[in-house]
Amino acid sequence: MHAAMMTEREFLSALQTLPLHPGGRGLKDDCALIEIGGETLIFNHDMMAEDTHFRRDADLADVAWKLVAINLSDLASKGAEPVGIMLGHSLGGNDQRFITGLREAMHEYSVPLMGGDTVAATGASTYSITAIGRATSQPVPSRTSAKPGQLLYVTGTIGRAMLGFEGVSKHLEAFNRPRACIAEGIALAPQVGAMMDVSDGLLLDVYRMAEASGVSISLDLSAIPVADAKKRDECIRWGDDYELLFTLPQGVPPAVSATLIGTVEQRGFVPIFIDGHPVANSDGLGYQHG
Amino acid sequence: MHAAMMTEREFLSALQTLPLHPGGRGLKDDCALIEIGGETLIFNHDMMAEDTHFRRDADLADVAWKLVAINLSDLASKGAEPVGIMLGHSLGGNDQRFITGLREAMHEYSVPLMGGDTVAATGASTYSITAIGRATSQPVPSRTSAKPGQLLYVTGTIGRAMLGFEGVSKHLEAFNRPRACIAEGIALAPQVGAMMDVSDGLLLDVYRMAEASGVSISLDLSAIPVADAKKRDECIRWGDDYELLFTLPQGVPPAVSATLIGTVEQRGFVPIFIDGHPVANSDGLGYQHG
Repeated sequence: MHAAMMTEREFLSALQTLPLHPGGRGLKDDCALIEIGGETLIFNHDMMAEDTHFRRDADLADVAWKLVAINLSDLASKGAEPVGIMLGHSLGGNDQRFITGLREAMHEYSVPLMGGDTVAATGASTYSITAIGRATSQPVPSRTSAKPGQLLYVTGTIGRAMLGFEGVSKHLEAFNRPRACIAEGIALAPQVGAMMDVSDGLLLDVYRMAEASGVSISLDLSAIPVADAKKRDECIRWGDDYELLFTLPQGVPPAVSATLIGTVEQRGFVPIFIDGHPVANSDGLGYQHG
Repeated sequence: MHAAMMTEREFLSALQTLPLHPGGRGLKDDCALIEIGGETLIFNHDMMAEDTHFRRDADLADVAWKLVAINLSDLASKGAEPVGIMLGHSLGGNDQRFITGLREAMHEYSVPLMGGDTVAATGASTYSITAIGRATSQPVPSRTSAKPGQLLYVTGTIGRAMLGFEGVSKHLEAFNRPRACIAEGIALAPQVGAMMDVSDGLLLDVYRMAEASGVSISLDLSAIPVADAKKRDECIRWGDDYELLFTLPQGVPPAVSATLIGTVEQRGFVPIFIDGHPVANSDGLGYQHG
């Protein structure tokens, strides 16, 4: 801990003062884009750190799987097809188990390893992946393209990761081995307005989509498919589900199974309305970074 | 430290059993390549960890600069033009100084930030960059293309980083703020046989080039441009110089200032000969990773 250390938010603000690649979208999106030779490549870099993202006694096979999945989930939200991953690895944990989980996830998503770096680091381990994908549809979906009149959908069931974390056996897999919705993202990309993955809590991510798109979104709370109706409020605030959240013009049925949970409106005085109740800021809506 | 932890070499061997992207060149090269839309993008991912690559009391502005430079140096060895960088950052050190050094290096190399991830990690900090470049010449140079009859050259002066590390004031900059030879790499790429950067010690990197190319290389020790002739043996074994090592057909003058230090020959019974003396293995030639 250093006197001049920053919070995550302060650090991000400082980064935003640096020269930015236009494909980085102001560091406001999860992925960066490079247009080259008529194609668009999509990049995502996510880290997982011991003590912060997983416990010291976690099975590193699960950690490696999850690291692949969370990176690919961001590609999924762009409708990208995975091209390869680069790995940044700290030696010192159960590296055998890490390799095992990495192999399983790479097999699951048919994504090859391209390279990376390995260090013998002291202290808590940090693992990172840079995932590289190829856009399958133009324009590449973003969280900024929700338009009034569109309908809001989410894939899957929300809250499974939370229940898995709490030890509910049938949801353990959802927490330990989340799934990136690659095929769903590719199917949806040509039809959606906005699209993003649900990583930090459904309500918070809806809020962010509304803010990024300059619209208001009205949510129908009872329509949200939750894994445990008795814990609806927690389910929609917890993260780690990695489902896809997207908007569609009215009359366009989603290309994959998904649930209608709200409507996009002209920007009102707040970004989101939950069952008609205005929500003025994002406090308490989900997992906030520093 | 875990019972099932691996050395860096064991971990690399395990990674090589995973499905590999053909552009990863078997994880034997520093960079990975993706050919797309008639262009070739080049990727490099290098990490720097506290206690392993820099001391706790290091100026993080220097660390950030060096992190950019070592990543771009690998792109330079491919004759690539930098496109952008993605940053993986652990909060908790003097993040202000990190941003300062990052800004200076990004300005020096005109390379923009594309994205990345920031974590609040405990323990020793780890920083990483994924550097993305565009090939300017085909075929993209590699360390495997040295051919008998070619001549071996190196740019700059070897051993400056070592002297800087030892506190020699006029070489401090070479250690703290190494330079990636981007312009030199672009100028050389169309003419070279093999090319790589000198990162782990000149002798060791020459050995690796000979091994990768399946040739023998005869070095003329006295021809190697060292920063301190009294410490010739140390200079050519220390790393961190980030000069370019490359081969050219005879009669082709190098496009940039460089020194002729050896010749490429049919593979003999050892990879390198130093002033005619055979060197059978790489022990003691430079910095070896675990």
